[in-house]
Amino acid sequence: MQLLNQRILKDGMELGTEIIKADSFLNHQLDIGLFMALGKEIQCRFGHLGINKILTIESSGIGIAAITAMYFDLVPVVFAKKTQPNTMTEEFYGAPVKSFTKGTVSIARIAKKYLHPEDRVLIVDDFLAHGEAAAGLCSLVEQAGGTVCGISAVIEKEFQGGSTKLRQAGYYVNSLSVITKIENGKIYFKDETE
Amino acid sequence: MQLLNQRILKDGMELGTEIIKADSFLNHQLDIGLFMALGKEIQCRFGHLGINKILTIESSGIGIAAITAMYFDLVPVVFAKKTQPNTMTEEFYGAPVKSFTKGTVSIARIAKKYLHPEDRVLIVDDFLAHGEAAAGLCSLVEQAGGTVCGISAVIEKEFQGGSTKLRQAGYYVNSLSVITKIENGKIYFKDETE
Repeated sequence: MQLLNQRILKDGMELGTEIIKADSFLNHQLDIGLFMALGKEIQCRFGHLGINKILTIESSGIGIAAITAMYFDLVPVVFAKKTQPNTMTEEFYGAPVKSFTKGTVSIARIAKKYLHPEDRVLIVDDFLAHGEAAAGLCSLVEQAGGTVCGISAVIEKEFQGGSTKLRQAGYYVNSLSVITKIENGKIYFKDETE
Repeated sequence: MQLLNQRILKDGMELGTEIIKADSFLNHQLDIGLFMALGKEIQCRFGHLGINKILTIESSGIGIAAITAMYFDLVPVVFAKKTQPNTMTEEFYGAPVKSFTKGTVSIARIAKKYLHPEDRVLIVDDFLAHGEAAAGLCSLVEQAGGTVCGISAVIEKEFQGGSTKLRQAGYYVNSLSVITKIENGKIYFKDETE
């Protein structure tokens, strides 16, 4: 997505060869006008799949998931929790998720009553790197007998292998901006015409 | 707000006399159509104050803050982080925040470059109980020399004293649903005509 690639070049910052810092518009300060354009684009790419639920994981996926739901006829958004609040008193589905940026492993949890066999789920997140969070969310959906219709990250770091693994496992992955490498301070995007 | 009070009576659940479980529409599964109505209402109540930034804290405030920003001419949303990700490499403002539902104390952090003296900030969150999170966010704004124009929670549990403390400290608090007590499994709302 050209608009997004340009924004990454303008306001993103590479930290070494692995990390893109996008906190001025994506995951600390949020540019909601941009999010609306991203949500519309996700609808263009996934709108034909009969999606009836959008799933994400706290925290940075929540804003983009909420805005995206507006373009999917206000389907419910569910975000997986990484800790168990004392208000989560009922049974939940759980899956381990390793955080690349925080270096921790947590259990992603969704209360069983919010996932069902008839769910056709779109998974949305801010970043897709090693694919740990997305794989965990897929597991939660499938534990409930539901269907993962697609996975879309705002920024995919293809070179870290998550999207390849997810595709090998049979999932449809289509991210808005796909970064193929970061080298000598330069960010390389996948050619969208490929 | 009548629509919201009715929704709390229909889908909320009281756990004892202190906790309202609103995870079917507010902080685990999100009803984005409802969020749009809430965002519009927040604009009605705070739209005259020249607000140029919306602040919240991860995770449950992010969805409502993102949707609300649409009704405030797409002002930036900033959410405070409770842990320090390895991408937060610059200086930040910090304030300790106790979580009522999780029983933990964390440091709410916002990178210094996202708060400024000219900021006129609206603080938005899902719940206002003891007021710890809101007070922490106020501190962050004031460390930057900015102005807290108002505080709005979707659900305020007035009986836990947070709003009283914040008002005594001089802040304008106006929450969408104000619960005065929970007794014998019944939820009591503040009369909006008072």
